[in-house]
Amino acid sequence: MKDVARRAGVSESAVSFALNGRPGVSEVTRDRVRRVAEQLGWRPSTAARALSGEGAATVGFVLARPADTLGVDSFFLQLVSGIQEVLAERHLGLLFQIAQDIADECAVYRRWWAEHRVDGVLVVDPRTDDPRPDLLDELGLPGVVIGGAPDARHPGLTTVWADDAGAMAAVVDELYALGHRRIVHIAGLAGLAHTERRIRTLRAEADRRGLTEVRSVTTDYSDAEGAAVTRRVLSGPTPPTALVYDNDVMAVAGVAAAAGLGFSVPADVSVVAWEDSALCRMVKPWLSALSRDTVEFGRTAARELTALLDGGPARAVQVPVPRLIERDSTGAARGG
Amino acid sequence: MKDVARRAGVSESAVSFALNGRPGVSEVTRDRVRRVAEQLGWRPSTAARALSGEGAATVGFVLARPADTLGVDSFFLQLVSGIQEVLAERHLGLLFQIAQDIADECAVYRRWWAEHRVDGVLVVDPRTDDPRPDLLDELGLPGVVIGGAPDARHPGLTTVWADDAGAMAAVVDELYALGHRRIVHIAGLAGLAHTERRIRTLRAEADRRGLTEVRSVTTDYSDAEGAAVTRRVLSGPTPPTALVYDNDVMAVAGVAAAAGLGFSVPADVSVVAWEDSALCRMVKPWLSALSRDTVEFGRTAARELTALLDGGPARAVQVPVPRLIERDSTGAARGG
Repeated sequence: MKDVARRAGVSESAVSFALNGRPGVSEVTRDRVRRVAEQLGWRPSTAARALSGEGAATVGFVLARPADTLGVDSFFLQLVSGIQEVLAERHLGLLFQIAQDIADECAVYRRWWAEHRVDGVLVVDPRTDDPRPDLLDELGLPGVVIGGAPDARHPGLTTVWADDAGAMAAVVDELYALGHRRIVHIAGLAGLAHTERRIRTLRAEADRRGLTEVRSVTTDYSDAEGAAVTRRVLSGPTPPTALVYDNDVMAVAGVAAAAGLGFSVPADVSVVAWEDSALCRMVKPWLSALSRDTVEFGRTAARELTALLDGGPARAVQVPVPRLIERDSTGAARGG
Repeated sequence: MKDVARRAGVSESAVSFALNGRPGVSEVTRDRVRRVAEQLGWRPSTAARALSGEGAATVGFVLARPADTLGVDSFFLQLVSGIQEVLAERHLGLLFQIAQDIADECAVYRRWWAEHRVDGVLVVDPRTDDPRPDLLDELGLPGVVIGGAPDARHPGLTTVWADDAGAMAAVVDELYALGHRRIVHIAGLAGLAHTERRIRTLRAEADRRGLTEVRSVTTDYSDAEGAAVTRRVLSGPTPPTALVYDNDVMAVAGVAAAAGLGFSVPADVSVVAWEDSALCRMVKPWLSALSRDTVEFGRTAARELTALLDGGPARAVQVPVPRLIERDSTGAARGG
């Protein structure tokens, strides 16, 4: 900084004002200082900025899922890609950690905040009974919750979410129109806010139409449980004519499991996958799926967090409703 | 720190010695100070540690691949899971960034190191012509290269690698024993060290056996290119009887593409996937694949980096050779 001041012919404090974007120096001086600083390869030390209260220039992201369920999960890599795009433009780092469970995740937030490691966090997998919003409030740690519906009890948190309820209603509409009356929803993790939202919507849509053979079964999102539940429900006395899976991996495993029992898709059973991906077009038949732009979802969340860090207000931002793309795995119900 | 010193009845410098694991205090004092510090919820500030030269307590990881090729890539999530397991034990953070290209990746390293953001980096996707080892040498930035063969020109870098050449030789052995003489290797990105190693080995093994219809075609690792190249090579006048894919995604897409042209697997063409995953058991027929423990690969790399940061020597560590698991996609060559 001394070198920059000498070369630019200004005081050290003028250099500090200029490089930190603060008032107190003219635009001409600011430009000169920046040019000289660039020539000298000077960059502000994150550590120095953190101690002077200017932030860690880093955003935290914790994923509390067992490593092995991440096997073929494209959702998080796509989400992180979108997040990273926005953070990179702002020269913000992404501090990433895989936690054992939600308690471990809370401990990570406490530690990061106490150690000035992050300026804010992106919170994923919101739950119906979730200790994290209270914790962020208590710590004063800025946060954006990805995937949860807005919660009036936490006005300081931004929420970026999709209308899972609307998407599930559209799926039921379409399956009903195709004559399906027995539908099983092979859901994700119980307790996750979006899992419960989908389950509630399915129940409400079934009740509205007087359908009694419609239900949800929760799983751990793995291909193994997707296949096991598929085999179980198809082996019953009155098997469902349509299956809705909460992710692509379970749907693909489910189609294979159905084939193993002699069920043809879609002649005997229709299949819808919640999360569209390349995977849905890699199997025969190509899977009908709910599609959304996950990379853009990540970008939106990161933009909201940087806005929050810049002093903007917390907001509830809704991304477009996932759209049902009909491919070859859905058809008229047998005898429907 | 003042509070800890007062409660423990020692000087502030004794607290500093005790908590930073330095000599100068007795074991009894060290234990007392640690207990008091824990009771008070005291934690060292990363920023303060960084400025005092004690490190950022953070490891960097840059991935220079386009976001969309990460679609269904389970390799990196599994690798990061293993890395994270080891780092979490040591209370080290993982700073993650997706870069546009290798030049951008180099710029990220320069910035992170200049800003004291990381203590060391994990380098992936080593290339045959790679500017990164020179850069790490120049900066003095500790690094572990994942996947590259040891390079005597960079004695300061640790290398954690697998013997791709040995695995490819085993695949050729097996296919040759099944009567295959026309083999196409649908490879990953040109210029990556392990891609080139596999291509060279395939060539050498073919030459050794006098096989003239064996070749490699490079791709971008995507399912789209995997399918396109499959269609192209199977449409020729003398199509190959065996296909070896550099990842699971391309193999699955390739089987579907082959079926589209009327080729049955393995009756008309045998298929081997390089990277085993749940995906290989989600399609019919189940794919024969090269299997390795990617989570353990990540753990090994992280352990080597922490050893380097603790002042240990750079090493070349070889992980077990990927093992060919024969499932239903490989069989005797037609007419072989």
